[in-house]
Amino acid sequence: MRFKLGCSLAYEIKAPTTFIFNVEVAHLKSLAIHSETLTLSPDLKREVYVTPDLKNRYLGVNAGIGPFSVEYNAEVELAVVRADPETIRETPVAELPIDILPFLLPSRFVSSDRLTPFALAEFGHLPKGHKRVNAICNWIHDNIAYQRGASDGETTADESLLKRAGVCRDFAHIGTAFCRALGIPARFVSCYAYGLVPRDFHAVFEAYLDGRWWLFDATRQAHLDGLVRIGIGRDAAEIAFATPFGEMEPTGMEIRIDRADGGPEPTERTIDAISTEEPAPHAGAV
Amino acid sequence: MRFKLGCSLAYEIKAPTTFIFNVEVAHLKSLAIHSETLTLSPDLKREVYVTPDLKNRYLGVNAGIGPFSVEYNAEVELAVVRADPETIRETPVAELPIDILPFLLPSRFVSSDRLTPFALAEFGHLPKGHKRVNAICNWIHDNIAYQRGASDGETTADESLLKRAGVCRDFAHIGTAFCRALGIPARFVSCYAYGLVPRDFHAVFEAYLDGRWWLFDATRQAHLDGLVRIGIGRDAAEIAFATPFGEMEPTGMEIRIDRADGGPEPTERTIDAISTEEPAPHAGAV
Amino acid sequence: MRFKLGCSLAYEIKAPTTFIFNVEVAHLKSLAIHSETLTLSPDLKREVYVTPDLKNRYLGVNAGIGPFSVEYNAEVELAVVRADPETIRETPVAELPIDILPFLLPSRFVSSDRLTPFALAEFGHLPKGHKRVNAICNWIHDNIAYQRGASDGETTADESLLKRAGVCRDFAHIGTAFCRALGIPARFVSCYAYGLVPRDFHAVFEAYLDGRWWLFDATRQAHLDGLVRIGIGRDAAEIAFATPFGEMEPTGMEIRIDRADGGPEPTERTIDAISTEEPAPHAGAV
Amino acid sequence: MRFKLGCSLAYEIKAPTTFIFNVEVAHLKSLAIHSETLTLSPDLKREVYVTPDLKNRYLGVNAGIGPFSVEYNAEVELAVVRADPETIRETPVAELPIDILPFLLPSRFVSSDRLTPFALAEFGHLPKGHKRVNAICNWIHDNIAYQRGASDGETTADESLLKRAGVCRDFAHIGTAFCRALGIPARFVSCYAYGLVPRDFHAVFEAYLDGRWWLFDATRQAHLDGLVRIGIGRDAAEIAFATPFGEMEPTGMEIRIDRADGGPEPTERTIDAISTEEPAPHAGAV
Repeated sequence: MRFKLGCSLAYEIKAPTTFIFNVEVAHLKSLAIHSETLTLSPDLKREVYVTPDLKNRYLGVNAGIGPFSVEYNAEVELAVVRADPETIRETPVAELPIDILPFLLPSRFVSSDRLTPFALAEFGHLPKGHKRVNAICNWIHDNIAYQRGASDGETTADESLLKRAGVCRDFAHIGTAFCRALGIPARFVSCYAYGLVPRDFHAVFEAYLDGRWWLFDATRQAHLDGLVRIGIGRDAAEIAFATPFGEMEPTGMEIRIDRADGGPEPTERTIDAISTEEPAPHAGAV
Repeated sequence: MRFKLGCSLAYEIKAPTTFIFNVEVAHLKSLAIHSETLTLSPDLKREVYVTPDLKNRYLGVNAGIGPFSVEYNAEVELAVVRADPETIRETPVAELPIDILPFLLPSRFVSSDRLTPFALAEFGHLPKGHKRVNAICNWIHDNIAYQRGASDGETTADESLLKRAGVCRDFAHIGTAFCRALGIPARFVSCYAYGLVPRDFHAVFEAYLDGRWWLFDATRQAHLDGLVRIGIGRDAAEIAFATPFGEMEPTGMEIRIDRADGGPEPTERTIDAISTEEPAPHAGAV
Repeated sequence: MRFKLGCSLAYEIKAPTTFIFNVEVAHLKSLAIHSETLTLSPDLKREVYVTPDLKNRYLGVNAGIGPFSVEYNAEVELAVVRADPETIRETPVAELPIDILPFLLPSRFVSSDRLTPFALAEFGHLPKGHKRVNAICNWIHDNIAYQRGASDGETTADESLLKRAGVCRDFAHIGTAFCRALGIPARFVSCYAYGLVPRDFHAVFEAYLDGRWWLFDATRQAHLDGLVRIGIGRDAAEIAFATPFGEMEPTGMEIRIDRADGGPEPTERTIDAISTEEPAPHAGAV
Repeated sequence: MRFKLGCSLAYEIKAPTTFIFNVEVAHLKSLAIHSETLTLSPDLKREVYVTPDLKNRYLGVNAGIGPFSVEYNAEVELAVVRADPETIRETPVAELPIDILPFLLPSRFVSSDRLTPFALAEFGHLPKGHKRVNAICNWIHDNIAYQRGASDGETTADESLLKRAGVCRDFAHIGTAFCRALGIPARFVSCYAYGLVPRDFHAVFEAYLDGRWWLFDATRQAHLDGLVRIGIGRDAAEIAFATPFGEMEPTGMEIRIDRADGGPEPTERTIDAISTEEPAPHAGAV
C-alpha cells in the first residue's frame, strides 16, 4: 500500500534544549520512500545518525529559547511479505543467527527474566510457531485493559502485567517479554499505523520466527499490513519519538497516515502473518 | 604494559546447549594483539559476530552432550592515554555526539531513571568533570560493601543501593546509573584486570567526558591502567562472558593476566585519568 | 476429632537470644484442650502474652549461650462447624462489623492494593460467596507451583504471583490478597495440620463470609476439618512460630499431629465449608 | 497546653458508601478531653469501635447518595512528659515487653526488612539512645525533600528513600523503618499538630526507648509538645482518617488546632524529649 504520512511536533523551549528525534521512516528494502521532507522552525543545524545495526534514523537538534517545531512528511510504498501463520515455525536457539541473540536478553522495560515463570506457565505448553506468539497477543488483548494513564515512562512489563492495564507501549513490552522468556527473540517497533484511532505514534513488536522478523500488535488497533516502521529497539527507552534534554513544553502534536493510492480502508484486518524486513544475512560461520 | 592473559572454561553438557561467549579481547587501536589462540574441545564449528557499533566479539557454539571446554590465550600490549583528572571537564549534552546519547538511557540493570533523585541529591552540587565521577566512585566504595552472594543475575542498581552490598558487576551498575542520572553518558565494561585478587573476570565502567571515554573502577580492586577490555554494553545483560541456552554445568573456570614484559607489579595504583579508546569520530552534522 | 499434637524445637545459642514463640494452640471455644505441657530446656523464665483482640498466645524467653530446646505437647478436641458452601454468601462491606474491617487492608506480605486489578480481572465477575473464595483457591492451586525454596522471608504476594511458585505461606498470602482486593476480609492462619505430608507447621487463611470466619487452604495438602489453629495475623510477619533476636542456629525441628480417638485417617477430604470460630459479637452501634 | 481542635470533612456520595473514620482524639491519661462533639449530616447511625490494644477510636457510617459531612470539635488539655534526650537509653530487645515486640516487624509501608542494610550502614555505629533516633530524624530531614505529590497511597519506605522525596506520611514511614531495622520498636502516629502550616492532619512516629514511647517528627514542621494523638498503627494503612468503601468525592476538608488557654505560639520549638503515653504495664512473667 502507498501512504502519505508524517507528524507535526511543536514545543515552547524554556531553556536551551537538545532534542533527539526518531520520527523518520526506516530505510528498508520493503519501504520505498517516494518523497520526504523534514522542516525545522527555526531552521536549526541538524546532526543525523543512523545506527549501524538497526538502521534507526536519529536527528539531533539544539534548540534555543522560544517556539520550536518539527514538520515531517513522506510518501511511501510499503510492500509486505505475507504468509500463512500455520507454516511459520519457531527457530531453535541453536539455529539463530548470533546477531539476533541479543533480542533474547531482558532490557529496561522488558523484564523477561522476571516473567519467565509466568510465560512458561501460560504459553510453555502451546504448539510452537507463529501461532504461539499470536496466542500471546490474544492473551494480552483479553487480559490487559487498554487504558490511557495506566502507565508512565518508568513502567516495566511485569508492573503492567500486575496492573492488568497499559497503552500500546506496555502491550508491546509484555508481548516482547513473554517471547524472550520463551526463547523467541523479540524487539520493540515504533511506527506510523494505518487504521489507528485516534491517530498517534504506535508501538508494536516483532518476533523472530523461521528465519525472519514478523510483526505483532497485541492491541489489535491497527492494520498489521499498514504498520510503517520508524525505529527498532530493545524497548521503548531506545526509540522515543522525541528525547529532550533541557526544559521545554510540548505545545502541539499531530500524527498522520492516509492511503495515497486511492484505496479504501479495508473492512477487515488481515489474518496473514506479516513481515516487512528481508531475512538478515547470517553472521559468518568459520 | 604488555600482558599474557586468557581464560579456561569447562562445562559438562547435559543436553545440547548453544553458547555465546564473549571472552576475546576487544579490537582497539590502543590494544595490540601480538598473539591469540582460542581452542574448543571438542573442536566444534564456530560462529563469530562482531557488533558493528561497539566491536564486541561474540563466539557462538552449539555443544553436544558431554564435556566441553574453551581455552583462550593472548599476548597483548595496552597503550593507555593518561591525563590529569583536573583537566577533564564534562561535555554538555548539546555537544555530545548523537551516537553517544543512548548511553544516557536506562537499561535493564542500570535503573538510572529511578536513581535520578538520589544522584542529584548526593552529587548534583559537586564540581563537574572527571572529579565528579571520581567522587561517585569514592561514594560507592565507601557506602557499598563488596560481598560475594549479595546479588544475583537479576539484581538492579537501585536494589544494590538499598542492599548496600554487591560485587564488581553491581558497583559498575551503580556507577553507571549515577552518571546517566546526572547527564553523563556511561557504559558497562567487562575486562581482564591486572592486579585483581582473586583472579576473575572484572566489571568496571566508562564515562564519556570531554570528548572521550574514561575508565572508572568503583571497587578499587585492580590497576586502572591494567584493564584489558573484552566487551562494552549498556549493562551486564549484554556482555556476559558466557550465555548458555540449554542444560549444562560449569565444571571449571580460570582467568589469567600477567605482565609479559618482565615489569613488576606497581606498588601503587595510578591516580591518572585513564582512557583506552580513541575519541570517536562524530556523527555527521548536516 | 481428637488430636495429639505438638512440636520439638532445638537450637544452639551462639550469643544471648530473645525468642518469641507462637506454637501453643489458640484458646477457642471450638477447641477443648484436654492436656497441655510446654517444657523449656534449660527451664528459663517465661514471659507470656495473649493479644487482646486475636487471642494469639506468645511466649517470650531470653536464652543464654549453649543448647536450648522447646517441647510442646497437647491433646485437644476440635469441633468444627460445617456448612454447605452453596449457602454461604458474602457480607456486604456496609454490614461488616467494624473490628473486621482491618482485615481488608494491605499488609507487609499481602499486597492486596497492588493485586486489585488482577483480582478483579480474574474473579470480579464470579458468583459471590464461599464458592468465589473456593474458586480463588482452585486458581492458586492450578496456577502456582508448590516449590520449596521459591520464596524467602521477604517475599510478597505480588512477587509470588509473578514467580508462579511458593510454599504454604505464599499460597495463603496470595489467597488473602485476592480476597481483600475483592472486599472480602481475610486473615492468615498458622496451624497444626492433620494429614499434611511431610509434617510441618502449616499456613492457611480465613475469609469472613456471611457473619463468620471460614477456613481455606489453597495448597489442598491437609484436611480442612483437621486444622488446629495456633495464631491469626494480617500475614506471616505477625505469627512466625519462632522469632529470634540474637545469634543462634536451629538444630532440630519436629512437628506432630495424630488422631487421639482411634479414628482412621479419612480417605477423602471434606468438601464442606469449615469454620472453627464462633461468630464475633458485633462492635456496638450507637 | 490546652487546645481547641477538630475537622470538617465533606463528601458527595455517588453510590452507597461505608466510611471508617479515625478523627477523634485518643483516650490517653495525658490527654484530658474537656468537651467533644461529632456531628454527622445527615445524622446517620454510627458504629463505634475502640481497638483493645491501641485504643484507636473508629467510627463506622453507611452513607447514602447525596451530600454527607462530618464535623468534629474538641477542647483538650495535653500534659506531656519531658526529659533530657541525653538521659534516654535504648531498651535491649531482651528487656522489651512482649506486647511491644510486634512493632519491630515490617508492615505494608514500613519495609524495615529491606532497609536493614541501609539503616545499619548509616546509623548502626551511632551512640545508642534517644539521640540515635534524633539523628535518624535529622538525616531524613536533610536528605528527603518534603514535596506534595511525590508519593501516593501505595508508596513504601524504601521507595520514598530512593525518590528522596515525600510528605509527612513518608517521613514517618522512613523513620519507623530505620528504627525497626535497628531493633528499636517504632509505630506510626496520626495527630492534630499545633504549629503545622498549612493546617492538615499530620503523621509522626513514636520510638520505644527506656521503657516508654517517645514522639519524633522528621518533618520538623510542628511543635513536638503540641501533637495531639488520633491513632496509632503499624503504618498509615491502619489509621487513615477516612477509609471509604463505595463511590464518593471529597468536596471539602478543614483541620483546626489552636491554643485554647490564651497562650501565644512559642517562638522556638522544644528540644526536650516528649512523651504522651504512660509506660505500659508489662505483660506478666511466669
